[in-house]
Parts: sequence; structure tokens; C-alpha cells
Amino acid sequence: MDKKQLVIEYWHQVARQDASTLRTYFAPDAIINWHNTNEQFSVDEFLVANCEYPGSWHGRVERIEVVSDDVLVTVAFVWTAEENFSCHAVSFFQFEGDTIVKIDEYWGDDGKPPEWRRNKGIGKAIR
Amino acid sequence: MDKKQLVIEYWHQVARQDASTLRTYFAPDAIINWHNTNEQFSVDEFLVANCEYPGSWHGRVERIEVVSDDVLVTVAFVWTAEENFSCHAVSFFQFEGDTIVKIDEYWGDDGKPPEWRRNKGIGKAIR
Repeated sequence: MDKKQLVIEYWHQVARQDASTLRTYFAPDAIINWHNTNEQFSVDEFLVANCEYPGSWHGRVERIEVVSDDVLVTVAFVWTAEENFSCHAVSFFQFEGDTIVKIDEYWGDDGKPPEWRRNKGIGKAIR
Repeated sequence: MDKKQLVIEYWHQVARQDASTLRTYFAPDAIINWHNTNEQFSVDEFLVANCEYPGSWHGRVERIEVVSDDVLVTVAFVWTAEENFSCHAVSFFQFEGDTIVKIDEYWGDDGKPPEWRRNKGIGKAIR
């Protein structure tokens, strides 16, 4: 299966928070690292962390970089159904065949620039 | 010049916040996007945003992925001199030759997992 398509579908399932479907993407002994909170999860633990995460979510892959046959990097834009919060996640996928064996993930909240920077009058909106 | 070495040195200069040295890495019309705060900077604007950022900082590149001759992805760990705050930045570099023409950057603060997840008793420390 095309890996780009695979990670797009994976992110769709992450946002849906359906544990049984999401499990099928992973090797049984896969590791998922959330570096900002210093958490390393097994697949079972990750399914709890992702699928019991409070709220109802949407997700869209904004960028995919293919490093090699087995390494892909995605940028995902994730937002609440109420559209009152959003964030970006950058994920480094390690595959064996069509199965994920490791994800290193970096999450950052979206928000306004801090006041000191707004006062500089620099920059313009990207989107 | 080896691009991996170049982005390592670039991040060293980002942490030092020395505008005149940092400028030499960029094409004059380069664009720097900070997606979490929806800010697009010219080189001049980026030098203000980076080098007038309050505080004294350290930075270390934790990961480099080479997508092609002209595209690299870095993960940088950035922390204050007082060691009371840290964050991770993921940067997608676009080069022309040895010069940066575009950076798409995603910043996320570090911190503890939220209470609901700590109460689940899942995960272990990465570092």
C-alpha cells in the first residue's frame, strides 16, 4: 500500500478515536513517544491515550515528507468539533512493511503570538 | 557544506540570538513560517522575532532527517538558561544550494501530561 495514503488514513482514524481500527496500523510491540510530555506508550497504552482523550476531534494531514521506504514525516492539523481549540502534531513514522513500529510525535497548541511580538508589528498571517 | 552540519550550526546560532550571524544562513527573500501562531516572517522580521525573544536560551538538535538534497527536517530541544522551561521545535528546511529559502516551523511547549492521563497510569518516561 502507498505509505502516503496509509498515513493519511491513519490520521483519519486518530481523529475518529476508534481503538479497534487504530490498532490494526501497529505492530504488537510498537512504541509511541510523545516527546513534549515525556511519555512513551505501548500500543495498548497509546490507544487509551488517544481514544479516551476528552472531546470530539477533526484531523487533516497538511504535509507529508517521505524520508525513505520506511520513514515518513507528517504534519497534522487537529481541531475540536466546537472549533474553539486547535493544534499541530509532527509525527515521525517508522514502518516495517505496512505496519507502524514506532512513532515519535511532537504536539504544539495553536494560539496568538505573545504580546511583545504583536507590539513589534512584524509578520503576516500564513492562512 | 554538509547540510546536516549546517542545520546543527544554524540551531546553535538560533539559541545564541545573534542576528548578524544568523542572517548569513538565509537567502534575502527567504520566508519563515511559525504555524502554531500563524505568523509568516521575512528574514528581517524573523531576526527580530528570534533574536529579541525574551530570555537566554540553549538549543540542541535531537534529530535530523534528510528528505532530499534540499529538504531537511530537524527536531530541536530548546530550554532556558534557568532550566525552568523547555520546548521542542520541528523545522522543515528548504535550501537552494547552501542557503535557506524557507523554514516551516512547529513549536510545542514541554510539560506534564494532563491529570486525566496521569490518573490512567499509562506510559513511562522517554528520558
